Amino acid sequence: MKREHKAEMKARARNIVLKVAYDGTAYHGFQRQTPPVVAVQNILEEKLQVVFGDSIELAASGRTDAGVHAYGQVVNFFTDGRIPTDRIVRAVNSLLPSDIVVRAAGEADRDFSARHSAKSKTYIYRIQRGEVPDPMTARYAWYIRRPLDVAAMREALGCILGTHDFSAFRASGGAPMSPVRTMYEAAVEEAAGNQLVCRIHGNGFLYHMVRNIIGTVANVGLGIITPQRFQEILDGCDRTKAAATAPACGLFLEEVDYGERFHF
Amino acid sequence: MKREHKAEMKARARNIVLKVAYDGTAYHGFQRQTPPVVAVQNILEEKLQVVFGDSIELAASGRTDAGVHAYGQVVNFFTDGRIPTDRIVRAVNSLLPSDIVVRAAGEADRDFSARHSAKSKTYIYRIQRGEVPDPMTARYAWYIRRPLDVAAMREALGCILGTHDFSAFRASGGAPMSPVRTMYEAAVEEAAGNQLVCRIHGNGFLYHMVRNIIGTVANVGLGIITPQRFQEILDGCDRTKAAATAPACGLFLEEVDYGERFHF
Repeated sequence: MKREHKAEMKARARNIVLKVAYDGTAYHGFQRQTPPVVAVQNILEEKLQVVFGDSIELAASGRTDAGVHAYGQVVNFFTDGRIPTDRIVRAVNSLLPSDIVVRAAGEADRDFSARHSAKSKTYIYRIQRGEVPDPMTARYAWYIRRPLDVAAMREALGCILGTHDFSAFRASGGAPMSPVRTMYEAAVEEAAGNQLVCRIHGNGFLYHMVRNIIGTVANVGLGIITPQRFQEILDGCDRTKAAATAPACGLFLEEVDYGERFHF
Repeated sequence: MKREHKAEMKARARNIVLKVAYDGTAYHGFQRQTPPVVAVQNILEEKLQVVFGDSIELAASGRTDAGVHAYGQVVNFFTDGRIPTDRIVRAVNSLLPSDIVVRAAGEADRDFSARHSAKSKTYIYRIQRGEVPDPMTARYAWYIRRPLDVAAMREALGCILGTHDFSAFRASGGAPMSPVRTMYEAAVEEAAGNQLVCRIHGNGFLYHMVRNIIGTVANVGLGIITPQRFQEILDGCDRTKAAATAPACGLFLEEVDYGERFHF
């Protein structure tokens, strides 16, 4: 967005913030694409324009890749539209397809940015276990048939807690920013339907970082490497030592936290 | 199937029985359709032909409608194919799309029929509650936003227990067979993720019967009619008095029981 254009957008009366859930299976990621390629942002902006009556350019807390899902993506945009805030959710949802849902809407001060004001994010990664796959979870979990050593996975994932250089789990395509991030939570839980749910909460994430971590944690679960080897890979800061990226379908952007700055 | 053709099929060496799960969203029901219309049976027969090496005509416990799912559909077919029974599941699943899965395979005596040997079936119907819909359950549950009186729904659904004439809940398109069926279980449970799960186990079901019952039970939950009115509708045997058919997406064929005759 050019600087003058950005200023023009910010001159509008309201800064609207939305919490959005989506099934990412049908979309080429969150970030706006040139048609006929369709991203979640394309659909969302198109419907918001109908509801608000002006052209909408939204900013998200971050992009999600093709096939990745969200329960708590957060976006904001500037508008002169006058629809009362408490009517936004139902008005927009009445226009959206069933795989995109606005869960909550609010109004923030002009300086709030879904991207820059974010304090931390929580991702969930779902693994489906079992002798045979489950067609009802195929879109929402990574199916692994061979038995997984959950205790070893828990030990490995625990290594990422605290502040580390995460270069070992950074995709080569990522922007050249600092690879240091702090993780507050890194848990592996056994859930209903023979699923494993990995939950990672941190102050920021590098491109493909969660999926690269999970790919390597899965190798620990399969007994291909030890939790100690996982620790060495993390410490070594060398991407070529980590496992393949885990599939997009298991990943959910669960929550974005803005501290005192904003909450729904 | 013509009589001579049927005899020819039964002359084959083996009677194979499969338990099949599918996400019915993309298919025009279970029963074989003329291409380009695609049903689950079309896909399944096509892949079974590759694995078994002869033309496959399978028979199912019953059809399911477009958009209806299954965890435990059961089918059987006659074949001269020689693949060992314990290798069937993985061989077929390696060819199937991710929304159809063979869960188990067995071999039965020649007189076993997935359709005619069935003793009872269990259906599950899922209702998604909540202020906003959940895009991750949109394919697998009926979303109802308004609060539901679960105790009243439970009382209404309980009325179907035992033996009744279910004409009130029979679709007009159904075959002219006896409308009397016996229900062994009819429960409404609150489940994770703010779902209601209705479970109905009976010795047989009329066309659209479960979805028509659920449509009327939902009206009880919404306070539109009382549980007593539900009882009157059941007793009245008049289809025009019951509510609209509940959406296909919430319905799952959970299990087909063959008693001592066959089990996986």
